[in-house]
Amino acid sequence: MAIRAAVAGASGYAGGEVLRLLLGHPEVTIGALTGNSNAGQPLGALQPHLPQLADRVLEPTAPGVLAGHDVVFLALPHGQSAAVARELGDDVLVVDCGADFRLKDAGEWERFYGTPHAGTWPYGLPELPGAREALHGARRIAVPGCYPTAVSLGLLPAYAAGLAEPEAVIVAASGTSGAGKAAKPHLLGSEVMGSMSPYGVGGGHRHTPEMAQNLSAAAGEPVTVSFTPTLAPMPRGILATCTAKARPGVTAEAVRAAYGKAYADEPFVHLLPAGQWPATGAVLGSNTVQVQVALDEAAGRIVAVSAVDNLTKGTAGGAVQSMNLALGLPEELGLPVTGLAP
Amino acid sequence: MAIRAAVAGASGYAGGEVLRLLLGHPEVTIGALTGNSNAGQPLGALQPHLPQLADRVLEPTAPGVLAGHDVVFLALPHGQSAAVARELGDDVLVVDCGADFRLKDAGEWERFYGTPHAGTWPYGLPELPGAREALHGARRIAVPGCYPTAVSLGLLPAYAAGLAEPEAVIVAASGTSGAGKAAKPHLLGSEVMGSMSPYGVGGGHRHTPEMAQNLSAAAGEPVTVSFTPTLAPMPRGILATCTAKARPGVTAEAVRAAYGKAYADEPFVHLLPAGQWPATGAVLGSNTVQVQVALDEAAGRIVAVSAVDNLTKGTAGGAVQSMNLALGLPEELGLPVTGLAP
Amino acid sequence: MAIRAAVAGASGYAGGEVLRLLLGHPEVTIGALTGNSNAGQPLGALQPHLPQLADRVLEPTAPGVLAGHDVVFLALPHGQSAAVARELGDDVLVVDCGADFRLKDAGEWERFYGTPHAGTWPYGLPELPGAREALHGARRIAVPGCYPTAVSLGLLPAYAAGLAEPEAVIVAASGTSGAGKAAKPHLLGSEVMGSMSPYGVGGGHRHTPEMAQNLSAAAGEPVTVSFTPTLAPMPRGILATCTAKARPGVTAEAVRAAYGKAYADEPFVHLLPAGQWPATGAVLGSNTVQVQVALDEAAGRIVAVSAVDNLTKGTAGGAVQSMNLALGLPEELGLPVTGLAP
Amino acid sequence: MAIRAAVAGASGYAGGEVLRLLLGHPEVTIGALTGNSNAGQPLGALQPHLPQLADRVLEPTAPGVLAGHDVVFLALPHGQSAAVARELGDDVLVVDCGADFRLKDAGEWERFYGTPHAGTWPYGLPELPGAREALHGARRIAVPGCYPTAVSLGLLPAYAAGLAEPEAVIVAASGTSGAGKAAKPHLLGSEVMGSMSPYGVGGGHRHTPEMAQNLSAAAGEPVTVSFTPTLAPMPRGILATCTAKARPGVTAEAVRAAYGKAYADEPFVHLLPAGQWPATGAVLGSNTVQVQVALDEAAGRIVAVSAVDNLTKGTAGGAVQSMNLALGLPEELGLPVTGLAP
Repeated sequence: MAIRAAVAGASGYAGGEVLRLLLGHPEVTIGALTGNSNAGQPLGALQPHLPQLADRVLEPTAPGVLAGHDVVFLALPHGQSAAVARELGDDVLVVDCGADFRLKDAGEWERFYGTPHAGTWPYGLPELPGAREALHGARRIAVPGCYPTAVSLGLLPAYAAGLAEPEAVIVAASGTSGAGKAAKPHLLGSEVMGSMSPYGVGGGHRHTPEMAQNLSAAAGEPVTVSFTPTLAPMPRGILATCTAKARPGVTAEAVRAAYGKAYADEPFVHLLPAGQWPATGAVLGSNTVQVQVALDEAAGRIVAVSAVDNLTKGTAGGAVQSMNLALGLPEELGLPVTGLAP
Repeated sequence: MAIRAAVAGASGYAGGEVLRLLLGHPEVTIGALTGNSNAGQPLGALQPHLPQLADRVLEPTAPGVLAGHDVVFLALPHGQSAAVARELGDDVLVVDCGADFRLKDAGEWERFYGTPHAGTWPYGLPELPGAREALHGARRIAVPGCYPTAVSLGLLPAYAAGLAEPEAVIVAASGTSGAGKAAKPHLLGSEVMGSMSPYGVGGGHRHTPEMAQNLSAAAGEPVTVSFTPTLAPMPRGILATCTAKARPGVTAEAVRAAYGKAYADEPFVHLLPAGQWPATGAVLGSNTVQVQVALDEAAGRIVAVSAVDNLTKGTAGGAVQSMNLALGLPEELGLPVTGLAP
Repeated sequence: MAIRAAVAGASGYAGGEVLRLLLGHPEVTIGALTGNSNAGQPLGALQPHLPQLADRVLEPTAPGVLAGHDVVFLALPHGQSAAVARELGDDVLVVDCGADFRLKDAGEWERFYGTPHAGTWPYGLPELPGAREALHGARRIAVPGCYPTAVSLGLLPAYAAGLAEPEAVIVAASGTSGAGKAAKPHLLGSEVMGSMSPYGVGGGHRHTPEMAQNLSAAAGEPVTVSFTPTLAPMPRGILATCTAKARPGVTAEAVRAAYGKAYADEPFVHLLPAGQWPATGAVLGSNTVQVQVALDEAAGRIVAVSAVDNLTKGTAGGAVQSMNLALGLPEELGLPVTGLAP
Repeated sequence: MAIRAAVAGASGYAGGEVLRLLLGHPEVTIGALTGNSNAGQPLGALQPHLPQLADRVLEPTAPGVLAGHDVVFLALPHGQSAAVARELGDDVLVVDCGADFRLKDAGEWERFYGTPHAGTWPYGLPELPGAREALHGARRIAVPGCYPTAVSLGLLPAYAAGLAEPEAVIVAASGTSGAGKAAKPHLLGSEVMGSMSPYGVGGGHRHTPEMAQNLSAAAGEPVTVSFTPTLAPMPRGILATCTAKARPGVTAEAVRAAYGKAYADEPFVHLLPAGQWPATGAVLGSNTVQVQVALDEAAGRIVAVSAVDNLTKGTAGGAVQSMNLALGLPEELGLPVTGLAP
């Protein structure tokens, strides 16, 4: 009766986090683990924080290896998911942690990724209006990007309630695991410790159209997004500062009421008490999103801040939450809400 | 049928970690939470990583508040546990995360702590020879110090197998949470980030006699300990480098065999494969201890290295593990073995 | 012939950085060092990175102690500078690293600081139009705040060239030394390492009116500022992401040209080559400001990013640069332009 | 009259630090800068903290490029220095930051490095007995390793004064820049932040015979060294905890006196006042070594702790200090003694 899950790309950060969560999931047993250049190696050398799986050996990412599972998680580089998914039957739940099937607009995909659009799958952010319903019974899921998760949950209530003008300005700081495990000089510890720097400035980050897609859906009109990501000296976590001009007459009470109503029943979104602000350190390893919002009356802007763990709620936790919905399990099953602090 | 647990000192790091683990323990419900200067405040402002308990208000640490629980965890400053425990009946399990009842030798206690010795309770390091038996059914437990946990598990097999001379030289690096949550200038982020420094050099650290007590028990003869703790720029984790001169004729194979045998059945001690070395980053938030050992033939020394999370296996995890044994529950119940990485 | 300088508040981070720079200044000798609660202690225990001054003992911050110097640097808590300065003759150069004399608008001062306005001194940001001239021969200098330094240098060219609408949206990340050396729980290493969090959200940060004052002066019209500061897990450095809507018809070439022209002759502002982005790690300990700018055409916004060391260019370096101008010395004298990296 | 210096390997951490120091040296002008795979690139893209040299382009490491300089600094991978040095005339001062010419014993070299021994050059640790004299007028200098610098200065006085038994046990923590700038997965920021781990355990680290060589020379008898290096989550700095059994009858006063006498006239070694312990954070970017020592009477061991910046005193600072001596310049010229803190 247990659900058998395979993980393709088990040696990376996203794959490792999927495994960490599945090890704590009461209905899942872990099947095949695959890698690319690491195939043949024991997982213990690659993910030493998962001692239960230390002796499991990575297999190649091949259809025969992934066949025969109830769920297959794909934690692959962008562009590789479609080919793998095609080989898996329609009865298999495929949960793609990559970007390939997130965007609805093929033109936007091609503009930001430079390759043909593979298609659009049900989007694994249950907190979006309508998303939960679309995930029930789904057999293909596109897990949102880590930044779009943080940013969408930061601004959705403002746009859904019609409180904000359709031009969002967002600056987010991310831990380095968001950049993956491939060794690149600018990601060396010596380079990142003690330093902050931006990247993809000026609208180039690939998560930008995904944010615009989500916020526009909530607003019912096109929302433009100015997004600047920065790299912070920490392994995990995203702090997203999300601002938008307030519509005329909007009050602080109205803003707070909209957020309170939007998140009253959300199991993983924690709107903090007035005066307390999110900290990524409070959500590490958890599926919790901390949100807070203020109205800056002098500047006329709504300022919402959200904190998520980019690997948990921002990737693997969102994936498991969506899997639960797709399989008809309780949405919260196996997902930690306590963070590891300090 | 659930076990009702109170936590005295719930606003500190040790108390917070006890709560984090108890929230994941299937047989425990959380009762009273007490504080000292923080009494009256909601826990959400003090431990924002525990959203389930955000609205719980701290009560004063008083007998009437702690009465009526099956288990009381004490996470108090040294010297306060005896008075609290005296008020709790003999049928209540009292688990003291402080130092008061760890040492057997009253003279050593007085020499290192400068106060009268309160007594000796069963010692909560189940991996020590004989300790598991003493914990079964116990109603008072002294949780080991974080450094003694790491160091004892690093060197026990060498001493128990008679492989090492009775003079240990140990240098350990600890994350800053080991120093607690009281605001002191030298613990500011500005001071600790990017810096390493020693403290208590020359034998003065209060954990030294506890290490000597454990290693001497294993060796069957008095073991002297040279211990130097250092403060490392990370919130959690202890890396203990433990060396002792090898007895004549000791071989690398004999050393490895002794460690393999000692830890073959230990659920939380993970002797790594040859060539892989412990990293505190692999055990964060888990009750796992990573151990590795080598024989330096040129220098004639056994070098063992262990990694623990000072707050989990080094404090709260050890406390819950011992509670499980005392109450006749499965030893591993509710205790994570996966670390949070990266 | 040497200039004799006293430092009031020598035990804090700003005072320590002033001393570090003065030790490398060829025309300055260091006179009295004063403290408040630390008076009577040797500096070696408080600023161990300044071994040349290890045996110097802090004196109380009193007029008799500060008298007889050519320059007095004040690194005191806000509100204390006026009383000290009043006791010092008009021939003494007083360089105030605090906020007391930065704002021109008494109403803004009272709204943000809650105390009567002490006055306005020449403003120590030489890169501002007209500032250099005002500093020549000055005997009172108000050193800018660290955030206003970073933000003003990020956006000045855009406003001075009339390229941006008068509503700036700014998010900045600061190292923890910006919060000073007073021990507060939320500044503990355990709390800040591995975490990002905002503070003063919604317009409350006291540096906001100072930014508005500078940007408005450049624009020639009132500029509103939405400013969100965040605390980053690093000891030093500010990364300021500064955005403003581009005026109609503004091109990327026009933006770049404006920045190139504005900073062509500035000794400490380094406009990076196209494609290279600022990193705080590259300016640590230096008086250098790294600036880069882009036009996000889809969002219609100018995005400028600047990186400074909050203690050097953001405080003590700006102070020494202004002192040089006031005393008729070469502006760059004694000021490092190389950062300490990695 | 200025000294013209070339730097081979200018894109790495050691080369960058040599350049940082030479930019502040009043008698040196910077000539050719060479790289290997980075030849042809501007230095600004590789060492953004050196804005004065941003437009300098790296040339290939070839004899014709390095010819015509008074001093050539080699910051090359081990094994490449001999070939380069052979092409440079005997009148050129060659300062090798690599290991090739450090060891006197060819057998030890071959055992640890696995290649034929290239020879032995005057050793650039002026604080060693006799070293200063050997450096005067030298035209070839072998700069010590970073760990041997810290460890030798930690234990030299104890051995030179005959206070310690000839078996040293050393554990040192190093910042990640010691491992260089080549991108390797285990050096990623995500891996090293928040984690400590050992490496080269059991006697395998290549710096071990160099430490033994230095300590044996001071002791006048062979000293064996048990050395365990650990990787700490910080970019720079080495904290070396160095212990040895005290000879019978040795007192704390005798130990302190020996250290006081040894370092009384050393410009860069700062023996701290009793009770104050070294911190790497206090020496960042400086050529200063902080040293402290205690006698652990219960364990019968001398415990000395030293802190250096691995790139400054541990590499480039030691190189420039030795260059000064070789060229007859004041030993301290151009070398910072203040650290960058916090």
